[in-house]
Amino acid sequence: MSSMMGNKIKISVFGQSHSKAIGVVIDGLPAGKKIDMEKVMAFMSRRAPGRNAYSTKRFEADKPEILSGLVNDITCGAPLCMVIYNENQKSADYNNIMDTPRPSHADYSAYIKHNGFNDVSGGGHFSGRLTAPLCFAGAVCMQILEDMGVSVQAHILSIKNIKDDKFNPINVENYNIEKKEIPVINDNKGEQMKAEIEKAKLMGDSVGGVIECAVTGIKAGFGEPMFDGIENQLARNIFGIPAVKGIEFGNGFEATTLYGSENNDEFCIENGEIKTKTNNAGGINGGITNGMPILFNVAIKPTPSIAKIQDSISLKYKTEKELEITGRHDPCIVPRAVPVVEAVAAITILDIIL
Amino acid sequence: MSSMMGNKIKISVFGQSHSKAIGVVIDGLPAGKKIDMEKVMAFMSRRAPGRNAYSTKRFEADKPEILSGLVNDITCGAPLCMVIYNENQKSADYNNIMDTPRPSHADYSAYIKHNGFNDVSGGGHFSGRLTAPLCFAGAVCMQILEDMGVSVQAHILSIKNIKDDKFNPINVENYNIEKKEIPVINDNKGEQMKAEIEKAKLMGDSVGGVIECAVTGIKAGFGEPMFDGIENQLARNIFGIPAVKGIEFGNGFEATTLYGSENNDEFCIENGEIKTKTNNAGGINGGITNGMPILFNVAIKPTPSIAKIQDSISLKYKTEKELEITGRHDPCIVPRAVPVVEAVAAITILDIIL
Amino acid sequence: MSSMMGNKIKISVFGQSHSKAIGVVIDGLPAGKKIDMEKVMAFMSRRAPGRNAYSTKRFEADKPEILSGLVNDITCGAPLCMVIYNENQKSADYNNIMDTPRPSHADYSAYIKHNGFNDVSGGGHFSGRLTAPLCFAGAVCMQILEDMGVSVQAHILSIKNIKDDKFNPINVENYNIEKKEIPVINDNKGEQMKAEIEKAKLMGDSVGGVIECAVTGIKAGFGEPMFDGIENQLARNIFGIPAVKGIEFGNGFEATTLYGSENNDEFCIENGEIKTKTNNAGGINGGITNGMPILFNVAIKPTPSIAKIQDSISLKYKTEKELEITGRHDPCIVPRAVPVVEAVAAITILDIIL
Amino acid sequence: MSSMMGNKIKISVFGQSHSKAIGVVIDGLPAGKKIDMEKVMAFMSRRAPGRNAYSTKRFEADKPEILSGLVNDITCGAPLCMVIYNENQKSADYNNIMDTPRPSHADYSAYIKHNGFNDVSGGGHFSGRLTAPLCFAGAVCMQILEDMGVSVQAHILSIKNIKDDKFNPINVENYNIEKKEIPVINDNKGEQMKAEIEKAKLMGDSVGGVIECAVTGIKAGFGEPMFDGIENQLARNIFGIPAVKGIEFGNGFEATTLYGSENNDEFCIENGEIKTKTNNAGGINGGITNGMPILFNVAIKPTPSIAKIQDSISLKYKTEKELEITGRHDPCIVPRAVPVVEAVAAITILDIIL
Repeated sequence: MSSMMGNKIKISVFGQSHSKAIGVVIDGLPAGKKIDMEKVMAFMSRRAPGRNAYSTKRFEADKPEILSGLVNDITCGAPLCMVIYNENQKSADYNNIMDTPRPSHADYSAYIKHNGFNDVSGGGHFSGRLTAPLCFAGAVCMQILEDMGVSVQAHILSIKNIKDDKFNPINVENYNIEKKEIPVINDNKGEQMKAEIEKAKLMGDSVGGVIECAVTGIKAGFGEPMFDGIENQLARNIFGIPAVKGIEFGNGFEATTLYGSENNDEFCIENGEIKTKTNNAGGINGGITNGMPILFNVAIKPTPSIAKIQDSISLKYKTEKELEITGRHDPCIVPRAVPVVEAVAAITILDIIL
Repeated sequence: MSSMMGNKIKISVFGQSHSKAIGVVIDGLPAGKKIDMEKVMAFMSRRAPGRNAYSTKRFEADKPEILSGLVNDITCGAPLCMVIYNENQKSADYNNIMDTPRPSHADYSAYIKHNGFNDVSGGGHFSGRLTAPLCFAGAVCMQILEDMGVSVQAHILSIKNIKDDKFNPINVENYNIEKKEIPVINDNKGEQMKAEIEKAKLMGDSVGGVIECAVTGIKAGFGEPMFDGIENQLARNIFGIPAVKGIEFGNGFEATTLYGSENNDEFCIENGEIKTKTNNAGGINGGITNGMPILFNVAIKPTPSIAKIQDSISLKYKTEKELEITGRHDPCIVPRAVPVVEAVAAITILDIIL
Repeated sequence: MSSMMGNKIKISVFGQSHSKAIGVVIDGLPAGKKIDMEKVMAFMSRRAPGRNAYSTKRFEADKPEILSGLVNDITCGAPLCMVIYNENQKSADYNNIMDTPRPSHADYSAYIKHNGFNDVSGGGHFSGRLTAPLCFAGAVCMQILEDMGVSVQAHILSIKNIKDDKFNPINVENYNIEKKEIPVINDNKGEQMKAEIEKAKLMGDSVGGVIECAVTGIKAGFGEPMFDGIENQLARNIFGIPAVKGIEFGNGFEATTLYGSENNDEFCIENGEIKTKTNNAGGINGGITNGMPILFNVAIKPTPSIAKIQDSISLKYKTEKELEITGRHDPCIVPRAVPVVEAVAAITILDIIL
Repeated sequence: MSSMMGNKIKISVFGQSHSKAIGVVIDGLPAGKKIDMEKVMAFMSRRAPGRNAYSTKRFEADKPEILSGLVNDITCGAPLCMVIYNENQKSADYNNIMDTPRPSHADYSAYIKHNGFNDVSGGGHFSGRLTAPLCFAGAVCMQILEDMGVSVQAHILSIKNIKDDKFNPINVENYNIEKKEIPVINDNKGEQMKAEIEKAKLMGDSVGGVIECAVTGIKAGFGEPMFDGIENQLARNIFGIPAVKGIEFGNGFEATTLYGSENNDEFCIENGEIKTKTNNAGGINGGITNGMPILFNVAIKPTPSIAKIQDSISLKYKTEKELEITGRHDPCIVPRAVPVVEAVAAITILDIIL
């Protein structure tokens, strides 16, 4: 298994950047759920390129075509398959990298794994373009979750050293970030991030950032001990998003600098319900939800495709060689990665609570 | 599935802190491998309590008893089952927490999940004691990995704000940390950490830290795209260790503060071999090894069991209530968690490369 | 998981009889394998309808369209997705069965499972039409198996009470049955079977039969003990073919009427190689191949769609009601099921030996 | 994975015939279920040897020891581990077969798979003795099923050519066979079977038979389409029982000799409930239960261990060689296999309906 995930809700992602189509099969959706395709499209458009000044201007229509699994927009229990046909692929752009792997891309490791038969064009199956089907699957799962009172929401927590406010860990409201050009809580910080991205772009460079994600409305008692806890499953799936290099739950790495007495979430009774006063655990103890919002942060590295000339090698001759990456590339993929993180979280959580 | 993991090497962990025994079944070990039981014991003793001044003094003999899978200490292809009989359990210590969950333990979430039937005594199946069988399985897998030229090594990267040196990411030597009381590279830092732990102990408090782990000798081309990459599988399994709240690969969260040009690992040729000049990616691109050392950091939260009185609640009466945790507890589990991280890494990597 | 199978070679089948398209994702194919699409088409045509007098005349172009996974007809390591667009669906034919389930079809059990939201039209996801993508996947896997010296071959062993000759269990040659209208070894028996099918058709009735399948060229030592043996995995997957109601390995049920001394396969040395003199075990001992041909028989029930009026019920009113199934249906699906059995065997065996 | 099965209820079987112990881990049992250990013991004793004249007289105490997962005989949600210590192993009996594989045992295929390191003694991990832990797990699952109104019952349908009556497929009552020496419906047939077994024993030979199993009380709508249907999962797991060579559901292979009009199960209304008039489908359509009893038959080959001298080979010298199997062996394992079939059915069904 590689491009599949899940136990009850099973996702199979396929396609390469420049193959005829990309898409996803979703197996295990409960039957009888009406899918609002307009909401799906709206969700997918948050990931789509060309939405703002600094994202790639390549044409990407990304019209999802449903091949199976829906009857009159209602799930029928059969696997739902969605495809997006690729158009206007400029494979020519990638001729030079067939022999010269791009630093910090998967070109080299895939070349070794697949004995040189990997589809290098546009990054092949490793392309960020494969997150479009993930967003589709996430949008579908999110609608089913909403019926269950569960919602998923993410925002940019930081771009380089500029930090947005955090979600209120005790009570995550609706921050209405999905319509913003830069999905942040604090718009001033959003403007600074924009400037930082613009600066990187002008330098022919790129920047990364951190995304904070919250799942609210999930009751206590979900998840399994040890290897099938909420953290295990979210971590496994979130690392399926290209460019992710770290994940932490609750206060994560920061917890290692606190005393136990500072980090522990003491219990209290609020309106007759058992709650914790703080939520440093990010809603999870022993892999199992405790009823507080699930909170996690995801580290997105700076886009490896940069305009600057870099040192690489010739695979054929095993000699050193400079590489110049041409074509347009996002100087920062973090804003577009926000709905992708939400999507993978939604798929994972639905898989767990079904 | 919950306490099981793996595809080729399949681990099934069982036992509760105070059940008759704890243990592990390892299914899928290649036949014909001689297991050096003395080395296994030596490895397990690194996790054992009572090794230093600040670790719990409870008696834990931890003698592994092999029930199956070995013939004359050689794997025979049948599942290897190992058990450790629990002795001298003091279940009485835990009577008060049956109704009063300990903050930031799994008591409450497990109570909800299991409708109050969870074995609360000693933390039950969520106890750190279950890492003993994990260490056993890891020690076995490590010996098989060594035959393949792969080695796994971890050290404490930080305790609270005191930081050890990092592994050389390009060339991880043998740092011989396994025999140290505090497994660090820089012994001065180790002394400071010890003082920090001692201080927390005196305060009736606890501290956490970060563990850095390296896997060396692994060739390029292992791992799968998307959801079955090295990062996905390591992350999923490492979160199976109690108290882990974060994982990052290579420079992880720090990468989000760098420019792409700083973070990218440029290629070079070294002695005719393709290498990268830096190893910010932690040896993994697109989920697949690139031949450089695999590097990752694990965040361990401060021990939730502290001597200070904490606010909790009565599960029965849904009223607020103070809780005093009695018995001896480690003010810092990070030193004992170092071999556990190595063990889980070894099991995971062996599972991937078989 | 439901319409997915496999561990290394992972198949995800999607589509309904009358959905926009049907298809399959094949994940895990080794990279660098040239796929001969003409051979794939030839294989698929063996399953296609309208090939002979008694099979349904519905138009089914079944042109496989490759969306991903191949670059210049060579596998690139990314998931291979193939779709077949459905044309000329006559959904109107199925209006009456929405409330009146067809006996021995999945209409009723799927109605209950999916709360009435199942796609009943043409049998939906349960339709025999879904075996077209299975044949595609099988044809691809078979080409990779052939490179490894493994071949898969099936024939009709019986239709109703008419029995074909059996494969020579010790040495299964190439019987060249794939081009026959009725894929049998003994053509006289084939003519009798044809007459039997014709007779059933005239009566508005249907017949079933048994398919014998052989896998040759597979070395000893493949498979796992207990639950992941060759028999377990073949059985699990073969029951994924609609209308299969039984499977037996080697002499199967007949073995229960023999003495041990008759049924045991004694060993011998032949040209320096260890063989068995008989092959009653069908090439498998303890779930593991012994180097002899793998042999198994599959029971295919008579087509449940018959022209005769049958007793059914109204789901809405819970009253008894007669049902007349209109439209054209195969009086016997066994001939078309022969390549499907080969396909599933090929996928399963490739999954095991990779 | 090999000696593991299941999705929600996960079973991990370990041990060899002559290892220190054999046992099983059951992961995923719901918490709060009282397990009646006396009933478990009574169930296990049905499989135990020495129960009648013709079964092996080897001493097998088979006292299950619970290591974890129960608190006061109530499941606590943690994995339940049970071990049986092996006593009085006579490994010496097996010295001669280390080089001379027994026909139709797994000795040879396991030797190849494990490069000669397999534990040959007593059949190692392939021994019928490993069905004792399966029976334990089945007995536990059966108690949970009973709380849900589901029961599992099997009997000997045939020994060699002597056939017992069949269950009433429409309405499977309690046939009270569990206390019989020969678990059959028709005791006259039981006497004839006994004579047949006795005859085989005197000849130094063995006989096999067919077991019929019924699962009653299961509602319509369980199971998944295609590869995760009831038939797929039962078949996969039942082939985990040593000596099983075939499985058929409902009238299985017999269906292939009937017309569709004879084989189809027409619907009717009975006391306001939807039923089928016949149950040729064995309660399953499209992999999904239809509310009728689940019925299946299992083919058990004659015991491969016979007293007669047989032809074998020397693995070392690759020469032909006669083999005489010494020690006591059951001339027929079918009676003892009856509870094993029930056990595996119970585990599988519980896994599906949870």
